[in-house]
Amino acid sequence: MLTIIEIGAIIAFAISGLIEAARRRMDIVGVFTVAFVTAFGGGTLRDVLLERRPLFWVQHQEYVWLVLGLTVIGSPLLGLMRHRWADRVMNLTDALGLGLFAVSGAALAMAAEMPLIVVVMMGVVTGVFGGVLRDVLCNEIPVVFQDHRPYALCAFVGCWIFIGFDAVGAEPWLAVIAGAGTTTGLRLLALSMDWRIPPWPRNMED
Amino acid sequence: MLTIIEIGAIIAFAISGLIEAARRRMDIVGVFTVAFVTAFGGGTLRDVLLERRPLFWVQHQEYVWLVLGLTVIGSPLLGLMRHRWADRVMNLTDALGLGLFAVSGAALAMAAEMPLIVVVMMGVVTGVFGGVLRDVLCNEIPVVFQDHRPYALCAFVGCWIFIGFDAVGAEPWLAVIAGAGTTTGLRLLALSMDWRIPPWPRNMED
Amino acid sequence: MLTIIEIGAIIAFAISGLIEAARRRMDIVGVFTVAFVTAFGGGTLRDVLLERRPLFWVQHQEYVWLVLGLTVIGSPLLGLMRHRWADRVMNLTDALGLGLFAVSGAALAMAAEMPLIVVVMMGVVTGVFGGVLRDVLCNEIPVVFQDHRPYALCAFVGCWIFIGFDAVGAEPWLAVIAGAGTTTGLRLLALSMDWRIPPWPRNMED
Repeated sequence: MLTIIEIGAIIAFAISGLIEAARRRMDIVGVFTVAFVTAFGGGTLRDVLLERRPLFWVQHQEYVWLVLGLTVIGSPLLGLMRHRWADRVMNLTDALGLGLFAVSGAALAMAAEMPLIVVVMMGVVTGVFGGVLRDVLCNEIPVVFQDHRPYALCAFVGCWIFIGFDAVGAEPWLAVIAGAGTTTGLRLLALSMDWRIPPWPRNMED
Repeated sequence: MLTIIEIGAIIAFAISGLIEAARRRMDIVGVFTVAFVTAFGGGTLRDVLLERRPLFWVQHQEYVWLVLGLTVIGSPLLGLMRHRWADRVMNLTDALGLGLFAVSGAALAMAAEMPLIVVVMMGVVTGVFGGVLRDVLCNEIPVVFQDHRPYALCAFVGCWIFIGFDAVGAEPWLAVIAGAGTTTGLRLLALSMDWRIPPWPRNMED
Repeated sequence: MLTIIEIGAIIAFAISGLIEAARRRMDIVGVFTVAFVTAFGGGTLRDVLLERRPLFWVQHQEYVWLVLGLTVIGSPLLGLMRHRWADRVMNLTDALGLGLFAVSGAALAMAAEMPLIVVVMMGVVTGVFGGVLRDVLCNEIPVVFQDHRPYALCAFVGCWIFIGFDAVGAEPWLAVIAGAGTTTGLRLLALSMDWRIPPWPRNMED
C-alpha cells in the first residue's frame, strides 16, 4: 500500500523536477540530479528524522532506476507536450507529489507512535521538502515561500484529515485517499481559484 | 536544567525568526516556517549528528505548540514594538539563542564523551545553524558570513569557557551560565563596540 | 587504507575551500568555515545516509585539527602562489577530492552490502556534496550545475570502474586507485579538453 503511494509520489515529483530543470536549459546530468533530488529529498529527510534505515531508495533500488528511466524517456515525452501544457502538468504533478508524500510521512510518524502535532509536522516536512530542494537547485525562491497561495497549509490540513479518518477507525486505504486527496485537491483548488493567504498582520513601520 | 536552556533558546530564536520574516512581509505560513526552522534547525542538526533519538522536538511536543503559539500571539506583540526597537530585540534574541544552543550542543557532545575539539565544533554548529537557515530562507547571505563581526567566534570561545569550568569541577549550572553568558555577552559586546575580525591575510593578486 | 584516502581527500578539498573563500575576501572565521564544510560535508552526508556512527570527523578528531592547521598555515602558502596558479591548483585539488571521496563513499556503501546502483549513487553524492556546499556558502551557483562540463558524471563513471575492478576480484587498493584515478583523470581531461555535456534534448517552446 505505502509502496504504491511512494511510487506515485516519486513519479509525480520526478516529472515536476524534469520540467523545471528543462526550463532552465540544464544538461542531462543536471536534469537527472534535479529529478532525483526532488523525488527523494522529502522521503530521505523523513527517513533521517524518523531514524528509518535503510533509506527507502536504498531498500527499493528500483526507485533509482525508475527516475533514471524517466530522465531518459522524459525528453521525447516533454517534446510532445506543448508549452502551455507544461505549467499545468507541472502544477498537477507537484500537487500530487505533495499530497502523497505528506500522507506517507504522516503515516510513518504515526506508526512510530509520535504525538499528533509531530505526526502532522512530519507529514508537512516530507511533502514540502522535495519541492523546496528542486527550487533551490534551480536557483529560485522556493514556491512555498514565494507565492502567497496555500501550499504547506494544504499538507497541514490534509494530514489532520488523515489523522481524523484514522482516529474514527476508518480503513487505512480510505484514510490515505482522504488525506492525500484533500491535500492535492486543496492545492489545485487554491491555484485555480487564486486563493491568497492573508499576510501576517503587523504594524511595525519600516 | 537542559530543558530550561532549550526552552529559552527556542523562544529567543523563534522571536528572531518572527521579526526577520515579518520584515520580509511573508504570509502567516512563511512566518511560522521561518520561526520553526530557526528555533529547531540547530538542535535538529545536533541530534542527527549526535545520533540522539527521538529528536528533541519530537520528545517534547510542547515545543512545537510553543512556536505555534508565539506565531499567533507574536503579531500584536511586534505591533506594540516600535521599529527602532526591532533591531535591538532581534540582536538580543539572536545572541541569547546563540549562547544557549551552543552550550546545549557542547553539553550533549560532552555527555557522549567526544574529544574536546569535537565538543566545541558541535557547540558552534548547534548555535550557528538555526540562524543560518533563517537567513537562507529569508534569502539573505547568512549574518555569520556577511558581517565581519565575531559570531561563530563567540560560540567558539564560549564553548571553551564551558569546557574549562567543567574541567575544574564547577557545578554544571555554573558552567552553563558561564559558557552561555560568555557567548551572548561577547556577541552583544562585539555589536555595540563594532569589533571587526581581521580579514584572512593573503597576497594573491586578483 | 581508507584512512589515507580520506586524509588525502580532506586536504585536497580543504585547500580548494581555502582558495575559494580567500577569493571572496572572507575573514578568517569564514575561511575556516568554508574549508571545514568543504572537507567534511560530503563525508558527513555519507555517514548520515549510511548510518555510520560516530561520524568520521568525530572518530578521528585529528582531521579537525588538520583543517584548523591548514587554515593557519594556508595563508602564507597561498601568498607564495601566483594568481594564475590559483585556478589550476583549485581545479586539481577539487578533482582529487572528488575522486577520493567518491571512491570512499562507494567502498563504504559496498561494505554495507547495498545494491550496485545505490553504491554508485552514494559515491557520487559523497564526492559531489562537499564542493556543492562550498559553492553555496560562497554564494555561487554550484560548479556541478553551472558549467556544462562533466563533474558528477566523472564520479559516476569512476564508481562503476571501482565496482568493476572489485567484481573481477582485484586487490582493494588497485580498485581504489583505478576508481579514484579514473574520476580525477576524467575531470582534469574534461577541463583541459573543454568537453561539454550535450544539453538535455527538448522541443518545448518558451
